[in-house]
Amino acid sequence: MFHGLAAFPLTPMNEHQINERELVNLIERLVTAGVSSIGALGSTGNYAYLNRSERFRVLQLAVGAADSIPVMASISALRTTDVLQLAEDAQRAGAHAVLLAPVSYQTLTEEEVYSLYERVTASLSAPLCVYDNPMTTHFHFTDELHARIAGLPRVQSIKIPGVPSDPEKAKERVNKLRELIPSHVTIGVSGDPFAVTGLNAGCEVWYSVLGGLFPKLCLRMTQFALEGHAVEADYYSVLLEPIWKLFRQYGSLRVASAAAEIIGLTSGPGLPLPLQPLHPTARDLLKPVLAEIESLEKSL
Amino acid sequence: MFHGLAAFPLTPMNEHQINERELVNLIERLVTAGVSSIGALGSTGNYAYLNRSERFRVLQLAVGAADSIPVMASISALRTTDVLQLAEDAQRAGAHAVLLAPVSYQTLTEEEVYSLYERVTASLSAPLCVYDNPMTTHFHFTDELHARIAGLPRVQSIKIPGVPSDPEKAKERVNKLRELIPSHVTIGVSGDPFAVTGLNAGCEVWYSVLGGLFPKLCLRMTQFALEGHAVEADYYSVLLEPIWKLFRQYGSLRVASAAAEIIGLTSGPGLPLPLQPLHPTARDLLKPVLAEIESLEKSL
Repeated sequence: MFHGLAAFPLTPMNEHQINERELVNLIERLVTAGVSSIGALGSTGNYAYLNRSERFRVLQLAVGAADSIPVMASISALRTTDVLQLAEDAQRAGAHAVLLAPVSYQTLTEEEVYSLYERVTASLSAPLCVYDNPMTTHFHFTDELHARIAGLPRVQSIKIPGVPSDPEKAKERVNKLRELIPSHVTIGVSGDPFAVTGLNAGCEVWYSVLGGLFPKLCLRMTQFALEGHAVEADYYSVLLEPIWKLFRQYGSLRVASAAAEIIGLTSGPGLPLPLQPLHPTARDLLKPVLAEIESLEKSL
Repeated sequence: MFHGLAAFPLTPMNEHQINERELVNLIERLVTAGVSSIGALGSTGNYAYLNRSERFRVLQLAVGAADSIPVMASISALRTTDVLQLAEDAQRAGAHAVLLAPVSYQTLTEEEVYSLYERVTASLSAPLCVYDNPMTTHFHFTDELHARIAGLPRVQSIKIPGVPSDPEKAKERVNKLRELIPSHVTIGVSGDPFAVTGLNAGCEVWYSVLGGLFPKLCLRMTQFALEGHAVEADYYSVLLEPIWKLFRQYGSLRVASAAAEIIGLTSGPGLPLPLQPLHPTARDLLKPVLAEIESLEKSL
C-alpha cells in the first residue's frame, strides 16, 4: 500500500463534534477516484487535536467508507503508553497501516526516538510508516537514524518532509536515503509543493494534502511521475503554483480546510480552536485558484 | 503570589502511575523551606504527558500538601476546549493560579495565540501566568503580543525564557518588556542558569526547576537578588555553574529527575517514555555536583 497517491482527507468538525456525514463523503470521493491509499487522521485530519474516542470513531468511519482501499492512521502522541493504546485502537478499527511521528514536548534524543519505534513496532501487527515532519514534531531525523529505524520489523515506508527544489539535488537526496534503507521500505514525499520533484527524483509515494480534495488530479500527476513522464507531471505542478504559494504562506491545513468549504465539500472550516480559519484576504485569493483546479479535476 | 521563588516540583511516577507519597514529600519539602509559591504540573512536573484525571489528582495532592502556600497549575493543551476543561479542573482542585503556554502542533499565528488567552481569561476566576517557552511550545512571542495579552483581565505574570547573560543587556531586555505591560503584571525569569541575572535585572519572580529540589538555597538566592544584593546572589549562581552546565547539555528535566533519585527524594527517574533517564556518564558527573549543593542546602 506504500506506493502511488496516499490521500490525506480533512476531518470535518466543529468545536463539539466530528461531522460524520461530511467525513464519509470526503472518503467516498477518494474511493471513486481510486487513490492508492487513504491517510485518515493525518496532520490534515487534525489527529493531534482529537481525543482517543474521536480518533477511534474517525477511523471506524474511514475504514467503513474506504471500500477496498487501504487506510493508514496516525498513532502519534507525546507519551509512549498512549501511542501503544492508539496502535491497538487503530488495528481494532480496521486500519491497514499506522503512521508514527516522534511528536515532542521535551526535546527528544536520537536514542529516545529509536527506542520509541522499537517499542511500538515490537507490539504491532500492521505495517508502519515513519512520519518525518520537523515542522510539527520539532525532531530532526538524521539519515543514519532513518536507516536504523527502517531496519525494524513492520517498517515499510518513510514519509519525508520535501526534497530540494533542484531536480538533481532532489535525486541526490533521495538516492542517499535509498542507499541506507532496506529495499522493501519505500520513500514517500510530503509537502505538496515538492511532490512532483520528489516523485521525479525517485520517491515512490506522494503523501498528499491536495490529494484529499482533488484526488483525480493528484493521481494523474503521481501516475505521470511514477511512469517516467516527468515533464507532464511537472506541467501540472507548475499550474498549481498559486495554491502551493498559499500552502507555503498560510500552512496547507488552513488552505485545505478553506478550500473544502469553498467548493462545498464541508459546511465549515473545521479547524479546532486555537486554529482559526484562513484569513479573508487569503480566502479571496484562493477562490479563483480553486475554480481552475476544480475544472482540471472535472476534466479528468 | 507572583513574586519571589516559585518552585516547580517533579511529578514522581512510573509508566503506570503517579507515586503519590513521593509527590507529597516533595511538596512538603517546599513548604518547610517557605517558598513563595509552588508550580505543580509545570514542564518539570511532566504535565504534557499526563491525562486529565492524572493532572487533577496531582493538583489535589499538591494543594492538600501545600498548606498556606499558593499552588499554580499548568492548564496547557493543544486544543482550546481542552484548556478550558483543564482550567475548570484546576480551580476545582483548589489551585490558586493557572499557567498557560501556547503549545502547538500546527504553527500558531499571533492572532490565534492572542485569541486563546482572550477566550481562557474570559472564563477564569483564578489569576493567570503567561508561559513563554519557545523550546517546548515552538511559538515565539513578540513583546507587542505580550503587551496585548498582559492587558487581559486575570493576567498577573509573564514567565519569560531567560535573559541575555550580559547584566546590562538583561536590564535592557526586562525594562523594554516592563514598559509595555501593566504595572500589576510581574515578570518572572525561567531557565535556571539565567535566573540570578534575570532577578538582578528587575525580574520579580524566579520560576525555578532547581527550587523544586533545593528550595532553601534557591530561596536564599532569590532573596539576595530581590533585596539588591546582586553580588551575593551571583556568588551562589556561579557556584552552581556545574549543574547549570548539565541543565544546558541534557535538559533541566532529565537532570532534575536524576538528582531527585540520587539524593533519595524519589525511588526512580520518573520520566514517562519516550523520555529516558539521564545518560550514565552525565549521572556520574552529577553526583559530586549534588553533594556540594546538598551541603549548601543543609547549611541554610
